[in-house]
Amino acid sequence: MDYSALIDEALHSLDWHKEPIGLYAPIEYALQTGGKRLRPQLVLMATNMFGGNIKNALNAALAIEVFHNFTLLHDDVMDNAPIRRGKPTVHKRWNANTAILSGDQMMIEAYTLLQDYPKEVWKVFNLMAREICEGQQKDMDFENRASVSTDEYIDMIRQKTSVLLGAALQIGAIIAGATEDNQKKVYNVGVNLGLAFQIQDDLLDCFGDPDTFGKQTGGDILENKKTWLLLTAQKLAADAKKENMPSPALTGNEKIRQTLAWYRRLGVPEKAQEAIQEYTNRALQQLAEIEVPEEKKKPLLALTAKLTNRVV
Amino acid sequence: MDYSALIDEALHSLDWHKEPIGLYAPIEYALQTGGKRLRPQLVLMATNMFGGNIKNALNAALAIEVFHNFTLLHDDVMDNAPIRRGKPTVHKRWNANTAILSGDQMMIEAYTLLQDYPKEVWKVFNLMAREICEGQQKDMDFENRASVSTDEYIDMIRQKTSVLLGAALQIGAIIAGATEDNQKKVYNVGVNLGLAFQIQDDLLDCFGDPDTFGKQTGGDILENKKTWLLLTAQKLAADAKKENMPSPALTGNEKIRQTLAWYRRLGVPEKAQEAIQEYTNRALQQLAEIEVPEEKKKPLLALTAKLTNRVV
Repeated sequence: MDYSALIDEALHSLDWHKEPIGLYAPIEYALQTGGKRLRPQLVLMATNMFGGNIKNALNAALAIEVFHNFTLLHDDVMDNAPIRRGKPTVHKRWNANTAILSGDQMMIEAYTLLQDYPKEVWKVFNLMAREICEGQQKDMDFENRASVSTDEYIDMIRQKTSVLLGAALQIGAIIAGATEDNQKKVYNVGVNLGLAFQIQDDLLDCFGDPDTFGKQTGGDILENKKTWLLLTAQKLAADAKKENMPSPALTGNEKIRQTLAWYRRLGVPEKAQEAIQEYTNRALQQLAEIEVPEEKKKPLLALTAKLTNRVV
Repeated sequence: MDYSALIDEALHSLDWHKEPIGLYAPIEYALQTGGKRLRPQLVLMATNMFGGNIKNALNAALAIEVFHNFTLLHDDVMDNAPIRRGKPTVHKRWNANTAILSGDQMMIEAYTLLQDYPKEVWKVFNLMAREICEGQQKDMDFENRASVSTDEYIDMIRQKTSVLLGAALQIGAIIAGATEDNQKKVYNVGVNLGLAFQIQDDLLDCFGDPDTFGKQTGGDILENKKTWLLLTAQKLAADAKKENMPSPALTGNEKIRQTLAWYRRLGVPEKAQEAIQEYTNRALQQLAEIEVPEEKKKPLLALTAKLTNRVV
């Protein structure tokens, strides 16, 4: 079954054509712009893997997707990002107040979609939501700090982006009646997959094929973003007491060219590949330990392969 | 028992000294600035009125207070308000991003405080939260509209400010095991009390004694706010085909003086008093119909008298 189409259909059936339109039209707009619907798919995959009925998990899947899009709305205001998935962000299309209030309403809608599930689901959701806020705060804090370790970076992206994947899988598992042990394992599958995915995103932003990756490379470098690659390069350069960073005075293509060359001299792309492999292995190991028929694991295995084998 | 002190103590015991401090320090600041703790007191009053143990209602009371303060944080950003309860607002003391993210975390904390209550509580809370967002949107929409009817204004303040009082009482009632009929009645007590309170706030902003009211009067007039008084004056003036509004070119004390005189000529203060009395009566009527010993109603009756008899 095509989970993505199922989710899109259910999202549209939520019916956002409600009053006041100034509150609901931006929500419909934000949810229309699509994306891969990866996170709600994880909910359904876990429910199916543990032998549950995915119809029972659909509202939880929608809650995860609506919540995820709420975080994007508010993050885009905080980052003053102009574009999301090729379209103007809500605060550019309308204004910041609209993005704040419609985002708030999306969070409430997510909780409303969860209100008929057992308390276990709420608790996982609440903890996840809190960690995402903490991760976003750490991300903002890092911008103003002179140095950040790779461990701190991993901790930040675990909270900001990976726990949502873990919680999506765990919630799907709870709905299917999985044991606590299996819930924990499938949560860890999601978190490690999320970490692998994020480091790969950092890698692709530097070394990806623009045709495959869908955007020009080097954006993170131009923005001086503290990515896994930059933090690793700084550490390796400090350890080697040589290979200083390219001059901060550089701009544009020359800044990208010299930074990429610096990364290559330090072996950063290989280190990134190793880290991606390490987190992917951890995810696969946890998945292997889950006691369900191997046949049931195939969709999640296929997704793991797809997510962690994007072309560099 | 002093509910207010109990709530303050419980709020402080939540312990906001957590990492990352950039996320939690603004929450502690927002919750420290006090206020009357009216809304959480309503939760405890209702639990007590229906024979429940207020200890069981304490987390729900905190959830209502934390949620209320979350709405203030985001509303202050949207209104660009510099001062709240005599102190700089969070977005002035820190910045808008902090107010957005710490506000989000407060909403999540409110839901977390509710996670061990029955689903009935969740459902009442979710509906209330949604209505508050809708009310805030309508309030912002009204600013850009040429005319707003008093019915539309009542609908807006019902959602923006009154359903929170209703939901606080209903949640307290649910925790005490009240019947659905009694839940509905106590909800209506809160909503009508909220409407009376809001119209009185509008009245006091124009005709209150600054020493008692705690701030200079005329602020709403200077800001051209569409209050119940202004909308009623506009309606009365249109009906009478005379008594046009004072020139919009007026400013400062002269604008206040002429607007108050216009209100007085049209009998607006008396109309406001009538409306306050009408909503108070509805609240008292609903309270009278609740089948619990009269003795149990005394704290809520005393609060009603206190709220609706502020000095004009």
